[in-house]
Amino acid sequence: MPRPDRPLRRFYVTPATLDSDPIVFGPREAHHIATVLRLSAGTPVAVFDGSREAEAELTAVDQARVSARLIGAPRASRRPVHVALLQGVARAPRMDLVVRMGTEVGLATIHPVLTARSLSSPGPGRLARWRRIATEAARQCGRGDVPEIPPPAGLEATLHALGPQDLFLVLWEGAVRPIGEVIAGTAFATAAVLVGPEGGLTEEEVATARAAGGCVVSLGPLILRTETAGLVAAAMVLYERLLRPRG
Amino acid sequence: MPRPDRPLRRFYVTPATLDSDPIVFGPREAHHIATVLRLSAGTPVAVFDGSREAEAELTAVDQARVSARLIGAPRASRRPVHVALLQGVARAPRMDLVVRMGTEVGLATIHPVLTARSLSSPGPGRLARWRRIATEAARQCGRGDVPEIPPPAGLEATLHALGPQDLFLVLWEGAVRPIGEVIAGTAFATAAVLVGPEGGLTEEEVATARAAGGCVVSLGPLILRTETAGLVAAAMVLYERLLRPRG
Repeated sequence: MPRPDRPLRRFYVTPATLDSDPIVFGPREAHHIATVLRLSAGTPVAVFDGSREAEAELTAVDQARVSARLIGAPRASRRPVHVALLQGVARAPRMDLVVRMGTEVGLATIHPVLTARSLSSPGPGRLARWRRIATEAARQCGRGDVPEIPPPAGLEATLHALGPQDLFLVLWEGAVRPIGEVIAGTAFATAAVLVGPEGGLTEEEVATARAAGGCVVSLGPLILRTETAGLVAAAMVLYERLLRPRG
Repeated sequence: MPRPDRPLRRFYVTPATLDSDPIVFGPREAHHIATVLRLSAGTPVAVFDGSREAEAELTAVDQARVSARLIGAPRASRRPVHVALLQGVARAPRMDLVVRMGTEVGLATIHPVLTARSLSSPGPGRLARWRRIATEAARQCGRGDVPEIPPPAGLEATLHALGPQDLFLVLWEGAVRPIGEVIAGTAFATAAVLVGPEGGLTEEEVATARAAGGCVVSLGPLILRTETAGLVAAAMVLYERLLRPRG
């Protein structure tokens, strides 16, 4: 049994299932509940469909069928933090990796940004591919929603579309201020991370981002590749807000 | 000029260069200093070779040559935290990615662990390949050392070889305790992260890790792929210790 001060274990169900009674879990969740976790009937859990969630209690747990009944009505999930990655368009395999891993980590949106040092301007085929990768990664990691990926746009247009953010981090190899100083020192519900392509951001782009409220920060003395840097910075933002005790 | 309460900008030099006077920077660092950062002669900086570091002052900055003179003798770098990744052996492309990105992030050692659900037992060719990838990634990210990669071994042998750790995190999809509770609540100079292969750790392996002092922790409701999970957890450990203000 979870201790009362611990969060409930959360299991994904489809929106249609969340509206049904009893809730019957899909094969992946059923296996997880019955065989991996060996939970028993009567265990309180949480169920979510990506946009809503509800408390529930397991009513039957066996190899053939795992079901639960709702305790209270589903309510809209409060997404506790909305993290956007503004990724300078890089070479194809790197972008694919950013989309896939960024979806797993929990990015809300991934904006491909056409920067001065981006080597290509991806066509509609690339955008469709990124969206397929995001959809597949979301399914695999048990995520109810899929991150939004708007069409590639320039930096100013992207910043304009994104609007003001509580926290806006600009990764730049010339920075000395450690990223954690800014993350830990800011109260935020929306956050964005800007990272350049392989060749980095130009000084003009850094100035544009600063003018839009960006804090230029460092990930430490090592120079991370673009796809590693954005992912790692996003993970740090989510860690601070979702996985670390406050204060 | 850096403010006095900010860390100095750090630049990599070879061990032979660190022993020479004046210090003449290599082309990558010279470009960074002269063209990207546009620092001028007289600027205080730090130089490091991966095992030692020293304060220095730029003496000449132009396109052809960037040099500095040491202020005080080089001293051994205190590695402020030693993070080991215990990676359940996964399919070849995932392992390559773990080694490459793990090197960039700053892992001290990467232990390939032969777990119950590892699908293959890699031969000497795979180990040599991982070491080549680590060496190349270390060079690219400006890291003076290369993470150690011992030959693949079983979990018990790996834990025995590793010895006791101040912080030992076990990533398991059945966990409910958020990783940040454990990281933020522990004072540590050595840390290890254990992550299973594609199929996860068995209950027996989790029990073995617990018996060796492991804390079973969660990265949140999403189920990350093995190569994403280990990398992200390692980044969170390093963030807490190196990039975030204490307290």
